[in-house]
Amino acid sequence: MAVPVWSVDPRTGKQREQVAVEATAQEVDAAVRAAAASLPALADRSVRSRLLRAAAGALEASGPEIIAAADAETALGVPRLTGELARTSYQLRAFADVVDEGGYLDVIIDHADPAAQPIPRPDLRRYKIPLGVVAVYAASNFPLAFSVPGGDTASALAAGCPVVIKAHPDHPATSELCADALRRAAVSVGLPADTVIVLHGFQAGVDLVGHPLVAAAGFTGSVRGGRALFDAAAARPRPIPFYGELGSLNPVVVTEAAAAERAEQIGTGLAGSFTLGTGQFCTKPGLVLAPAGEDGDRLLTALTAAAGEVGPGVLLDSRMRDNFLAGAAARSALPAVGAPVPAGDGGEHAVRPGFVTLPAADLAGADDYDLLLDECFGPLTVVVRYGSADELSAVLDRLPGNLTATAHLGAAEAAESDGPAARLLARLTALAGRVLVNGWPTGVAVAPAQHHGGPYPATTSTSTSVGGTAIERWLRPVSYQDTPEALLPPELRDGNPAGVPRRVDGVLELAG
Amino acid sequence: MAVPVWSVDPRTGKQREQVAVEATAQEVDAAVRAAAASLPALADRSVRSRLLRAAAGALEASGPEIIAAADAETALGVPRLTGELARTSYQLRAFADVVDEGGYLDVIIDHADPAAQPIPRPDLRRYKIPLGVVAVYAASNFPLAFSVPGGDTASALAAGCPVVIKAHPDHPATSELCADALRRAAVSVGLPADTVIVLHGFQAGVDLVGHPLVAAAGFTGSVRGGRALFDAAAARPRPIPFYGELGSLNPVVVTEAAAAERAEQIGTGLAGSFTLGTGQFCTKPGLVLAPAGEDGDRLLTALTAAAGEVGPGVLLDSRMRDNFLAGAAARSALPAVGAPVPAGDGGEHAVRPGFVTLPAADLAGADDYDLLLDECFGPLTVVVRYGSADELSAVLDRLPGNLTATAHLGAAEAAESDGPAARLLARLTALAGRVLVNGWPTGVAVAPAQHHGGPYPATTSTSTSVGGTAIERWLRPVSYQDTPEALLPPELRDGNPAGVPRRVDGVLELAG
Repeated sequence: MAVPVWSVDPRTGKQREQVAVEATAQEVDAAVRAAAASLPALADRSVRSRLLRAAAGALEASGPEIIAAADAETALGVPRLTGELARTSYQLRAFADVVDEGGYLDVIIDHADPAAQPIPRPDLRRYKIPLGVVAVYAASNFPLAFSVPGGDTASALAAGCPVVIKAHPDHPATSELCADALRRAAVSVGLPADTVIVLHGFQAGVDLVGHPLVAAAGFTGSVRGGRALFDAAAARPRPIPFYGELGSLNPVVVTEAAAAERAEQIGTGLAGSFTLGTGQFCTKPGLVLAPAGEDGDRLLTALTAAAGEVGPGVLLDSRMRDNFLAGAAARSALPAVGAPVPAGDGGEHAVRPGFVTLPAADLAGADDYDLLLDECFGPLTVVVRYGSADELSAVLDRLPGNLTATAHLGAAEAAESDGPAARLLARLTALAGRVLVNGWPTGVAVAPAQHHGGPYPATTSTSTSVGGTAIERWLRPVSYQDTPEALLPPELRDGNPAGVPRRVDGVLELAG
Repeated sequence: MAVPVWSVDPRTGKQREQVAVEATAQEVDAAVRAAAASLPALADRSVRSRLLRAAAGALEASGPEIIAAADAETALGVPRLTGELARTSYQLRAFADVVDEGGYLDVIIDHADPAAQPIPRPDLRRYKIPLGVVAVYAASNFPLAFSVPGGDTASALAAGCPVVIKAHPDHPATSELCADALRRAAVSVGLPADTVIVLHGFQAGVDLVGHPLVAAAGFTGSVRGGRALFDAAAARPRPIPFYGELGSLNPVVVTEAAAAERAEQIGTGLAGSFTLGTGQFCTKPGLVLAPAGEDGDRLLTALTAAAGEVGPGVLLDSRMRDNFLAGAAARSALPAVGAPVPAGDGGEHAVRPGFVTLPAADLAGADDYDLLLDECFGPLTVVVRYGSADELSAVLDRLPGNLTATAHLGAAEAAESDGPAARLLARLTALAGRVLVNGWPTGVAVAPAQHHGGPYPATTSTSTSVGGTAIERWLRPVSYQDTPEALLPPELRDGNPAGVPRRVDGVLELAG
């Protein structure tokens, strides 16, 4: 009996249209097998580069239709979704560049050395090969950039891995349109359409991570859902890597000097960052450590004013709205917690942004406040006021792993290599995968040096899901020993016919 | 009540001396905390390089004593252990070179670009930092190279991670001597002795992988033990990476052309490889696919003669001996299996090497033969005779993941890029982390291009435990956004004061 998959408008709560049906166990199996059959066709680097560029073009060509569907399903708004589509196309092309350049193959060649000490050395040539079929679990909050055509898919295809994507139920129509674009792109460069397959349904996602031919998985979502799939991936007869991005508080520390210099600017900036996209960013600043005292008070005054001016917004679905309202209420109800701008109901289907405050001594002193160290998805942040370096330190000691950690520093301390700011940055580095100074964590640039990941529960691995090195997740090294030139891939042959950067006999060599 | 740890002579089965006591839960906790306290001191790359070189020197200075103890505890023999110590010192110095060169930091710098499309880009600078305390589980079969001073320890220290090592019960005295050498080396370069700590006891190993301050683990051992620890690492509240090397069949395929050209040489070479070190190598060729027919018969005749000449050997401990005798008997007793040179009892405390044969059609056709696809630790190999390419293919289809896979090819087919040998190598590449042509997998060169790892159960990750890239296991990337020069580590500053290879604004640059 087919279970229908509906597209729902979060602005009204009404079903828009039936988009698909949930995949049965048999359909999941057939999808994985079909994807696996396209693995050999993806072996050629140049076809993968063309696939990624064609996918970017196809996405842009269907842009108006995709953006309209995404706005209707997610309420994220046309301007934001227009930007997200541009980012997604840019990301696909950036991975095409990564494939073309070939540095990601990490080629290392050691020629035979019969005179080597302590024993003669054979000829060894190492590069990286695709793992196999990759399962991608799409995110709710980025219907494009972290969903069907997003970073996991782009990096997996770049690596040479076919993908089977479990669509997010918040945007099934968008997912289908994007799947069409990607599959057309595959066919346009001579690849099977089943290089990319999209499935719907909760159970389909569970079946997918257990399928024997699935070699790795990428996930962006909640701690609960991500951990369950991580556990399933680890418990398989043959465990597979599970690259999950689960949850993050993204702490921000405002030093006394920074507050003295720029209290108003920081307060206003914070209001903009934690309410951006109705607070539905994985990098939303969810915990802010601001100094007690007058400068901190000025920061809060500015924050109060700016946050109070932000109007209500619609969350991605009604379950998230319920969770947000319950989470905001529970946090506000804790002893010693104040709510200068209370988050809450924003009228039918909408929520109103807000923040809570409390003294650091309370947060650091009692487990009752553990709730404040859990991510609250939506436009809410927690401002903790510290009275001393020790109080600040005690709060940092309690923090779990994060995607980002931010310091707002005064001008003089930021110029001192060996002072308190350097020590603060060392503390923040231990807590996160991206450390920012005098900025806001929302906004994750697609760039080679990006790292979007961090200690658990931010991510379940040491990898990134954004930036060029995200491709590393879907590869494994293999080394060829004493293998005749004719049987080696071009990347490993003498003379470097493939023109890739290589480390040869211990020396790094640039391409061609 | 202290549980004594005894050093036992496998040649006699007698206890030699009490070396230590098993660590209690409190002692494990204290050890991990002491190791964690040395993390900041290891942050300096130059001190780590000096530590590794000092460790190599200390090991060599204590060489005679260490080798004598290791021989008495493992029966591996002085020549082999002398070579293993040289390899281990070489490996420590090789990781010092890796640290000095700095390429392993994977530095990527993207300068801010306000004009970037689709949106302005911040300044992002990425490198890699140590994960924290690493737990190392020493192997039975390499008391030096894969134990206290071995590759896991060397690569973890190179990465900047203190190590707590669970010694293997087969060589506790050797472990203590090596621990002394490493701890003296640490002190000699100004580091705390507790940069390296050795513990004993099964339960200590279990406690170690669950300790909140342990950030990653390296393991070399059995599928059963390794999987149990892998499961424990994954089930922690905060899961940690577990880099385990568990088990491997190391299949060898001899083509008809290779047998026609070099049957005797291959048969003799195989006898040498599977009996090397009394068959106690993780890369022992445990399954050999040889052609049916006259040339394959010649190979078997040579193998029979050469294997029959290898005398009995002593395994690492009596439990392994019992397991080997039971395993060899169970394999020989399978229907259609022959044992031209029967493995078995070699007199008191020793075993005799041998091999079994059977037709490929039997192996591929029935689950009864699954036992032959399990690694049998010790001097036994399985020779499967195939009558056709289809029969060969059907056996390859059934193989689990391996550390190595080997092809013996004829001269003409090895020169053909697009023929059956290329297709065979593609099949073998899917099965293993190292692919060899016309060689034997025993012997794992310490070299930058080495890859010692492979699909599960060979290893539990895509990493290597031998070679320069083994350092990657103990690092995680962190990216600094818009961070003032004064607060950046030297490796990330403009002008490259640390002199490391870097990718700057998309372009790979060699060191200083």
